[in-house]
Amino acid sequence: MAGFKIPGITVYRLALYARTLEKLLEEGKDIISSEELARECGVNSAQLRKDLSYFGQFGVRGVGYSIPALLRHIRRILGAGREWFMVLMGAGHLGQALLKYEFLPKRGFKFVAAFDIDEEKIGRVVNDVYVYHLNQLSWVLREHPAEIGVIATPAKAAQEVADLLIENNIKGILNFAPVRIKHPPNVIVEHSDLTILFDKLAFYLNRLD
Amino acid sequence: MAGFKIPGITVYRLALYARTLEKLLEEGKDIISSEELARECGVNSAQLRKDLSYFGQFGVRGVGYSIPALLRHIRRILGAGREWFMVLMGAGHLGQALLKYEFLPKRGFKFVAAFDIDEEKIGRVVNDVYVYHLNQLSWVLREHPAEIGVIATPAKAAQEVADLLIENNIKGILNFAPVRIKHPPNVIVEHSDLTILFDKLAFYLNRLD
Repeated sequence: MAGFKIPGITVYRLALYARTLEKLLEEGKDIISSEELARECGVNSAQLRKDLSYFGQFGVRGVGYSIPALLRHIRRILGAGREWFMVLMGAGHLGQALLKYEFLPKRGFKFVAAFDIDEEKIGRVVNDVYVYHLNQLSWVLREHPAEIGVIATPAKAAQEVADLLIENNIKGILNFAPVRIKHPPNVIVEHSDLTILFDKLAFYLNRLD
Repeated sequence: MAGFKIPGITVYRLALYARTLEKLLEEGKDIISSEELARECGVNSAQLRKDLSYFGQFGVRGVGYSIPALLRHIRRILGAGREWFMVLMGAGHLGQALLKYEFLPKRGFKFVAAFDIDEEKIGRVVNDVYVYHLNQLSWVLREHPAEIGVIATPAKAAQEVADLLIENNIKGILNFAPVRIKHPPNVIVEHSDLTILFDKLAFYLNRLD
């Protein structure tokens, strides 16, 4: 499996399948057909079978998938189950919402520190996470190692903050600022674009009329 | 085209193509091959050609796509270019970040009012949007009609708030609360799950090691 390239959109769908399987498990379901799982996820079932076939064969023809087994397998593929330590860059509204988002630590994503340059915010503690001045980043990362940097700064600060993270050996960046980050190829950057969600909703609303 | 069902994930990819084309256009590009566009978007090129073929033929074999023409076409499919009026439910950190998110009005998504039940927040004006008490929802919607409700409340309040929106004839809901909303079939609900982004990043980080 190592070395073969899985498209980003496939990984996105795997995470979506995992979320949906978790929900079905909570609802007390145990077995599901690929058609039903595809419908729950809003993908077509040929697509779903193709995605899962990347990683070997699952499911029993005519019976369906075991939800716990499939979920375990997808989680293993996604590398879920381990803990990731993160620093937050920018403790504004979005940043504080992320610090308070209870579903992140539940899934193993833990903030060890937050950074800002606004004296008003420095020294605050949000959901047990301390807000440091940006110039303490190197020092804090030596004390509290982290693998992921989450950027929730204004657009104009995002590249500078990303460069600092990369200098300090952060290998994964999730960027919520609405700007593309330039980065070396050995650093992974995911961009979040909330407007895509609004576009998707608008598309379906247009078709209602 | 009417009446034929396009999977949610296809619509998501169309919005992603639109964002990427906008970026390429800003960078001064005019023509792109399907392979190059697919690479920029992180999808495979067979997938991209298949998605676009839903809506007719584009591009010239051996030459590629005209970026402005393709973008215009995708925007038309997505129903972009019109304005959507929205109410925000919950003016906490995430809600205020959304009110301040400059990329939404740029793309035609405009908040007309915000609602909360916290007396501290009621009466505030965030980025020209007034925060009302939740019990003024019907009255405000009569004065300022809106099509979309954005839920940024705690999980436990989300269903009640969604029910209120639906009673008041809102047809589209974007739910940021980490809980599934029950709704009649003539209302469109999109759920945003930020944890999927973190999962995707973790997947690629695991493969770096």
